[in-house]
Formats: sequence, C-alpha cells, structure tokens
Amino acid sequence: MAAKIPTRLHLSEDEVPRYWYNLRADMADKPQPLLHPETLTPITKADLEPVFCKEPVKQELDETTRLIPIPEGVQEFYRAYRPAALIRAYFLEKALATPAEIYYKFEGTNTSGSHKLNSAGPQSFYAKAEGLSSLVTETGAGQWGTAMAMAAGFYGLNLTVFMVKVSSEQKPHRRALIETYGARLIPSPSDTTESGRAILAKDPSSGGSLGCAISEAIEKAVKTEKCRYVPGSVLNHVALHQSIIGQEAKAALDKYGIKPDVIIGCAGGGSNLAGLIAPFMGERLAGTSKARFIAAEPASCPSFTRGRYAYDFGDTAKATPLIRMLTLGSGFVPSSSHAGGLRYHGMNPILSKLYKDGFLEAQAHVQSAVFEAAVQFMKVEGILPAPESAHAIKAAIDEALECKKTGEKKVILFGLSGTGYFDLSAYMAYNNKTMVDYVPGDEELERGFASIPDIPQNRV
Amino acid sequence: MAAKIPTRLHLSEDEVPRYWYNLRADMADKPQPLLHPETLTPITKADLEPVFCKEPVKQELDETTRLIPIPEGVQEFYRAYRPAALIRAYFLEKALATPAEIYYKFEGTNTSGSHKLNSAGPQSFYAKAEGLSSLVTETGAGQWGTAMAMAAGFYGLNLTVFMVKVSSEQKPHRRALIETYGARLIPSPSDTTESGRAILAKDPSSGGSLGCAISEAIEKAVKTEKCRYVPGSVLNHVALHQSIIGQEAKAALDKYGIKPDVIIGCAGGGSNLAGLIAPFMGERLAGTSKARFIAAEPASCPSFTRGRYAYDFGDTAKATPLIRMLTLGSGFVPSSSHAGGLRYHGMNPILSKLYKDGFLEAQAHVQSAVFEAAVQFMKVEGILPAPESAHAIKAAIDEALECKKTGEKKVILFGLSGTGYFDLSAYMAYNNKTMVDYVPGDEELERGFASIPDIPQNRV
Repeated sequence: MAAKIPTRLHLSEDEVPRYWYNLRADMADKPQPLLHPETLTPITKADLEPVFCKEPVKQELDETTRLIPIPEGVQEFYRAYRPAALIRAYFLEKALATPAEIYYKFEGTNTSGSHKLNSAGPQSFYAKAEGLSSLVTETGAGQWGTAMAMAAGFYGLNLTVFMVKVSSEQKPHRRALIETYGARLIPSPSDTTESGRAILAKDPSSGGSLGCAISEAIEKAVKTEKCRYVPGSVLNHVALHQSIIGQEAKAALDKYGIKPDVIIGCAGGGSNLAGLIAPFMGERLAGTSKARFIAAEPASCPSFTRGRYAYDFGDTAKATPLIRMLTLGSGFVPSSSHAGGLRYHGMNPILSKLYKDGFLEAQAHVQSAVFEAAVQFMKVEGILPAPESAHAIKAAIDEALECKKTGEKKVILFGLSGTGYFDLSAYMAYNNKTMVDYVPGDEELERGFASIPDIPQNRV
Repeated sequence: MAAKIPTRLHLSEDEVPRYWYNLRADMADKPQPLLHPETLTPITKADLEPVFCKEPVKQELDETTRLIPIPEGVQEFYRAYRPAALIRAYFLEKALATPAEIYYKFEGTNTSGSHKLNSAGPQSFYAKAEGLSSLVTETGAGQWGTAMAMAAGFYGLNLTVFMVKVSSEQKPHRRALIETYGARLIPSPSDTTESGRAILAKDPSSGGSLGCAISEAIEKAVKTEKCRYVPGSVLNHVALHQSIIGQEAKAALDKYGIKPDVIIGCAGGGSNLAGLIAPFMGERLAGTSKARFIAAEPASCPSFTRGRYAYDFGDTAKATPLIRMLTLGSGFVPSSSHAGGLRYHGMNPILSKLYKDGFLEAQAHVQSAVFEAAVQFMKVEGILPAPESAHAIKAAIDEALECKKTGEKKVILFGLSGTGYFDLSAYMAYNNKTMVDYVPGDEELERGFASIPDIPQNRV
C-alpha cells in the first residue's frame, strides 16, 4: 500500500473542509469556564465584548455546536494559501530506516511562515463584518504579528502591533515584513499606553515581555473607537479556527484510507496542537480510534510536564479573565537562552483538560536535541523548520526510532507548523555549538507558581 | 469559464512532466556555438569536461534532442518540492479591476526560496552518478548557494561555495542556511586560490564580485581530485533543467484548456525565464501559437534592452568559454544601489538569440517601480516576492492595466521565481523611501562594452 501513497496528499478545492470542528462539543468532561477575575463567576459575553470581536466571543463560549461553518469570506481567504500540504516523509523514513509511515501537515508555505494565518484571517473577517475599523494585537517572535498584518491588510483594517522591544530590535526583518504589510508597529513597552508608561517609569531600559505587550494592546483596544483586541493563541476560539489544520489533514488521510496511530504537535499556547488533533481526538473520545496524542514542548518552558492545573491569568499584567489551565504561573519568564517561540507560561484550556484526563501525553525536549532533529529533517525533507515546529519533529523521530526497535509499522502524523527563515541566528548558535540547554530548577518553578492567584477555586 | 478555474491548478504526481524540453531542437536559427577563447573555434566536450560534469556537458552541446528524460533519481528529488503551484491571481485581478486573467507559477515554496533548486538537483545527481565526491560553485545574493547546499547534501556530495564577501557579510542568515545544510562557505576573494590571492594582493579590503567568485570556484574545481564546477545560470544545460517550470505550467494550463497570450519572466542570467517560456515558445516557433513573450530586467543592469549581441566571457576573470549573447561587457558592474539579484552582465544565449530574432520582447524597470508592484502584489496575493521576481510582477501588472484600458481579456502568465525572506533590508529601504533608482549613463555602458573581446567574430 505504501508505494501507492503520493509524496503530497492533495485535496482539491471541492474536497476542502467547509467547517471548523469544535472539539468541546464532543467532550463529556468539558474544560471549566473562564472566570471574571473580580467576581470569580463565569465570564459572560458582556464581559468579553468590550475587548474581543463579537463572533469570536460567541465561539469562545460555545461548548455545544460541533461543526461551525467557515464563512464564505474566510473560505476565500483560505483559498489564497490553503489547503496546506500533507506530505509523506519518504526521505525521513528512509534516513531513519524505520518501518513507520510518517506524514506531516506543513503550514509554513504562506508568507507569514506559520499556521497563525488560519486565525488571523477569520478574526479580521469578523472584525470587518461587525463594522470595526481597527485592531490591536501583540507579537513576540513575530509570527502572529506578521499573520495579523497580512490579514488586516487583506480585509482593509488598520492594525497596531505591540512587538516585544527586544524582539523588534533582534528581528528587524520581521519588523520590516509587518510594516511592509501596512501595520503600525510599536516596540513595547511604549509611552503610548498607561501600562507601558508605568513599566518605563520603573525601568526606562526595559526590553519588554509578552505579558507587557498584551497589556498595552488590550488597553489600546479598549480605549479606541471601533477597535478590538485579537489574540494569537491560548483561547478556545483561536483553537477552533486552527481546527482547519486537522480537518484538512483528516480529509486527506481519509481519502487514502490512512488512520494515524500517533499524532504529534508542538505546544506553546496550544493553538497549533489543538487544531491539528481536534478531529482525531474527537474519534478517540467517541471510542472509534485508539490513536495516541503527544504534545512536544520545550524543557525550558514546560507547562504540560511540570505545570500546575489551576486558574491563572493569561498575561503578566493580569488583564485577562482567569483561565483553568496548565500553567507555570504568569510570573514565570523562560530563560533568554531559549531560542524559539513556545515561551508561554500557560496552555489552551481544552488541551490542559485532555492532558489531565489522560487523553493527551506530553514530552519536554531540550533545544539542542530539537535543533539536531531539525537539521536531520531539513537535510532530507528539504524544509527549514521553525524551532517551534522542530519540537514536533524531535518527538516524531523518537517515535519512528522506537518503531525501528520494535518493528511496529505505526502511522505517525505530526504538525510542521512553520518555517525558520527568521530564526537563522538560532541555527547559527546550534552550528557553532554555542547553544545552551536550560532547564529551570524546582525553586525557579516555585517562584512562578507563587504568581498563580490564591483563590478558592485553586485551593480545591 | 473563469469561475470554474480553481485558485491552484494542481497536477497530480501522474500528470507531472517526465521530460525536460530542449528548445534549441525546435529553433530553425540556433544560437551560435560557444567558442574556445584561445583558438576561437567551437568548444568541444573535451574542452568542457575538466570543468563541468559529463552529462551536463553533453546537454550543453546537444542542439537536436527535443525531449530529454528526467532521470528517476532526479524525479525523486523533484517530488520533494514539486510540482510547484500554478496559481490564478484572482485577488490581484480584482485589485486591478482588469478583464485579464492572470496566472503565476510560484517556485518559492522550497527552502532555497527559488527556482534554482531545479538545476542544483540534476547537476548534483549527475555528479554523484559519475563518481565525483565534491563540487564547487559561487553565489552572489545566495539563492544558488542555498540550492546547491540542499542538493549536494541530498546526494551526499561535499560542496564548497565561494560567496561574494560583501554579500556574505550583509546576509549572515543566507550564510547560516548554506552552512546548516553542510556546505563549506568561503567569502571571496579568499587566500585559498591563486585568483583570490591576486585580487587580495591588489586590494586587501576587496568586497569581491561575482566574477571573482566564479574564477575562484573554477580554479578550485579544476585543481581538486574528483571535483567539478557547477553553474547556476546562463548556460544552456541550466536553462534545460529549468524547463521543468514551463513543462509543468503548460501541463496544468492544458488540463484546463487555457492558452496564455502573454508570458512574462524576470531575467538575470536567464535560466528562470528560459525555463518558463520554453514549451510555449516551441509552439510559437512552430506557428501554432501567437503568444507574446516578455523579459523583465532591471534598468540598472539592462542586458536585453541596452546590451550588445556579441561574443563575451561569462565572468570578469575571463575563465569561461566565449558566449554569443546580449552583454553589457564582463567589465560592467551594476551600481551597488541596486537591491536584488539580476546583476549579471550577460544573458543566456538562447534568449539572446530569440530576442535578436524578434520572438522575445524586453522591458527594463527601475527598482522603486518594481518594489511598488511587489508590495501591491503581496498585500493581495499574500506572498512576499523576491525583488528579482517582482520585475515580472511589474510587467504583468502593466500588461493587465493595459487590458483594462483596451477591454481585452488576455491571459497573462508570469513566473514568480522566488521569495524575499532574505531581502527585507531592501523592502525596508523601499518603505523608508531611501531606495535609489539608478540607470547607467551611456558613457558608463561604453566603458562596459570596452571589455568585450575584440575578436573577428565580434567585428562582423
């Protein structure tokens, strides 16, 4: 059978999925609701709508609708760069001499270089549809900022991106790309918001942080007419939009009668992983599949493998609702020696719940091992992976090598969420053997956990 | 009919062309032969084989075989990233409000970021097949060096890349990518060759040039056991390998019954343009098509529009055979204010001949107009184009706007030869309005022409 599978498992436009899949609808035990940080009661539409766009808020709170139609205006956007390729890794299989079949869903061919565009598109579409004129967001490594710049430009919306200052200085080309797409980029902390000014007053030379950039973005969104904030990960409506990854992967595999045994994704805030696994996990929850699911995370920011399952804030400034999730504490800051993204302290609530309930496994990998896997992959498959995505490659290679030992012909599917064109400094460090593997000590984690709010729900 | 054409015109693996198309076989008037620079007689296999690999030499001299089978070992390599997408530019058509249909063949999704991989693959395959252990080449902007690093790594060959020193310093990330793929990169001029040492003796701080890098590469190839030199453009066998672009584009268009009226490509050394137009030009020469063909070149290095049709050297060190081509003279050096590639003084001999015979038109564009077109394109089509490729976009947009005036529903096909991830400094210059449009004066061109050899064949 293997010989009949093409290298690229195409979907024609007719075969492209027209629905996002809302996994929560099929979860018997659902994630706990977001809480209002002051009242500690479940958050409502009215609480969220001053910050987020209306339809995404509805999606965030919708736990029952299984299939949500992708609006025609978003389908049109998706057609510009989707369906994303599902690739049989024949060359990698050969290099590993594994009996396993390896497939990867490659989300990096669009110019933003990652899967982030899958949610930037719909969020911009809904903003335009409800009559907004501008959006605000933050970006760290830059993938989300680039995706939003592309999407906002496409739908004719103004966009302001608060980019972590140290990142905007280290990655002038990311900045150039975002600005070329017409977005206004402000290095954060800035003097354009109260939260930015407060941080600068304490430390005028602050290089910023993702938490600070989120706070500035939310503040600006709330204070600006016809403007909202757009999040790039963690929240459930972002994961919903990313389900297009899994929906397409499943449609392509189904076409060839292929059932994956192991499904692997990298995890930072979790949207890429949640999107990839969604329809496959639905079958597992329904009992029609015995597939295993693996989250691959950095050992330097191990939310899954060493985090606590608690209600926590999504940002360091504590401006978001409380989210029940696996978290290292919003005060946890990953070591600066960590090269790629995936530096977020928390994790999407659906994934957190699935992990707690034993449906999802997790592995933490040190970055030198991750780059070793990336280089092995790129030399045979010809694609320069993002360091983030390379965590999934590492886990997939380990799994394939295990098959080599046992002789099992497992079918492995992993998500290659993006390309590494803007991460070549990290590859240089790996080539020069100056890359440092950092694993936080228990005391360091304890300091992070101390920032988790001490509320009754967390004392149970 | 238009509504039935998908955004992406896929070819399945069964539909992928298995032959390169050798346009010379269908040319009644063929390009003149390469000459030995000392004897001024047509070059022979024996002259070329000490420098180039055997099968490529055979292809270089083959004027009669129409279809050359792509070896299975190269087809396997192509399957890793081909077929390249043929995309209907619905969004660009809408933005321009043109009645024209616009299609583009996008060669940038592979990690080398350009079409260069199409020849790097076969050249490495043939080198391996004849038992060589290493290859040497040069690179300017870095696309060819990256492509060769990927291909040499794939086929298990050692590779040395002489990279123009100023470029290796300006583009550390290109360098990192080439090195990550396992190639040895030497900034040129270097002290590893006689020609490099000679240049350094005159000017120790020399930033190098493509001509100098070619000389060093050829010298090293000739002096090393089981080693040859691999060229990235200009020569006919490189154009032959690039015919896979046109072969695929034609197969996909034929599938939908589409006949292009205008076919446009950017031109530096000419391999991308020659490859794209080959099968369409074959029909034009046979009288079964009336399509127009347009070469888009930079006004700062105008080989087509202001060059002389003469026998000239391919490099500044005069180490190559003499090539009858459109040339600005091997002593012509494009202004450093010119941002992208396409800085070559000469032009592929097939294209030069077709231009002289009236089958091919040419346009020269200043770079600010080219970047304006690039930004217009990327905002609607979502792809960051290489500055080189943006010359073709500029010409395609002009053609589509002309259709808007006349109401003609022309079918326009252009080649989008690569992505601009490593060219964001140039986009920054465009955004900041610090980009300079340079057009060489007549005196400057005369100085270049003075370097064209004064041989009898050039006095006719």
